[in-house]
Amino acid sequence: MRTAFHGQLESLTELLSSMCGLAGLAMERATQALLKADLAMSEQVITDHDQLTEMQTRAEEAAFALLALQAPVAGDLRLVVGSLQNVANAERMGGLALHVAKIARRRHPSYTLPDKVHGYFAEMGRIAVELGNSARDVVLSHDPDQAARISDEDDAMNDLHQRLFSAVLDEEWEDGVTAAVDVTLLGRFYERSADHAVEIGRRVVFEATGQTVSD
Amino acid sequence: MRTAFHGQLESLTELLSSMCGLAGLAMERATQALLKADLAMSEQVITDHDQLTEMQTRAEEAAFALLALQAPVAGDLRLVVGSLQNVANAERMGGLALHVAKIARRRHPSYTLPDKVHGYFAEMGRIAVELGNSARDVVLSHDPDQAARISDEDDAMNDLHQRLFSAVLDEEWEDGVTAAVDVTLLGRFYERSADHAVEIGRRVVFEATGQTVSD
Repeated sequence: MRTAFHGQLESLTELLSSMCGLAGLAMERATQALLKADLAMSEQVITDHDQLTEMQTRAEEAAFALLALQAPVAGDLRLVVGSLQNVANAERMGGLALHVAKIARRRHPSYTLPDKVHGYFAEMGRIAVELGNSARDVVLSHDPDQAARISDEDDAMNDLHQRLFSAVLDEEWEDGVTAAVDVTLLGRFYERSADHAVEIGRRVVFEATGQTVSD
Repeated sequence: MRTAFHGQLESLTELLSSMCGLAGLAMERATQALLKADLAMSEQVITDHDQLTEMQTRAEEAAFALLALQAPVAGDLRLVVGSLQNVANAERMGGLALHVAKIARRRHPSYTLPDKVHGYFAEMGRIAVELGNSARDVVLSHDPDQAARISDEDDAMNDLHQRLFSAVLDEEWEDGVTAAVDVTLLGRFYERSADHAVEIGRRVVFEATGQTVSD
């Protein structure tokens, strides 16, 4: 009985890990779509998002079944509850990639980004993908130290986001209101994506140790 | 034993309901701070947010204890799991009010909003407060019909958000980039706040019926 239970728990963990990986991949593609005004890439991110939503439903059902049929306790219970909470975080990371792709599609065939902020988004995209991959890995490894390090990568994202924001609000911004609005929203999407990865890391720390990580 | 369990479940429900109410109140105050450039009101929203975070921790611990010690099944399990998920939604609603208050504070003593979008935010604020109150009520009533109606209020929010967005991107926008950036972020915060209320409504429908509401 415990073996079947642990097999199901492992399946849930793998499903959640795959969701994080897919969310990272979606952000990678959305960033490419944005930087290269690549319509096909935007469309792919938009189409692929349904898969993530469907995985979310499956993962929630699996977690629910584990609670209902197996009544886990202690570390196992923390793992099921943490997974249930992290499924929502992984789906949101994917949802934010979807928003990025939609903005890129809306501006096609024009480029969404003024040249001067191109570098910020290349870097924010790189960090977002790394964070998605880190989330994917720690969900599987259950390693609290690795999970806690996700915050360090988030610090880099917050710093970039802050500098991007200053660039838009600088008096020398000459790219007009539409570009400013797009850049503001896009910056917010990348920053939020990183926050969800941090949240996933926090839950993994809690699952592994029973301790909550403070801000 | 079952009586103690239901007492604890009721306490959890009441705590979640209070969180929704407080999130609605925070959005009401943040909107006032924004519309009236009221610094004291901004500060109050910012200070009060800690209470919501502390309630989130308590509610998560209570849900976890119910799962660990009582191993609920069927409708009771749905209620515990749904509450656990909704606690995160309620906290985010409050977090978005906090963001609104911080923007209002950053611009003080100036007004953040150009006159022409004042009306949009007065209305978006009204709807956000209504949605917070609706969430507060359905969490207690468990009424699936009332919960499903939250989406209708969200439609009104989405419509306003869309019109606000068009106003900012209109060629006649003469209020500069900083105001455009603030209005864009603020619009997003109100719209996301409404999404979280919808999510709370969906979970309540699931708790009450076992059925998932699709988009």
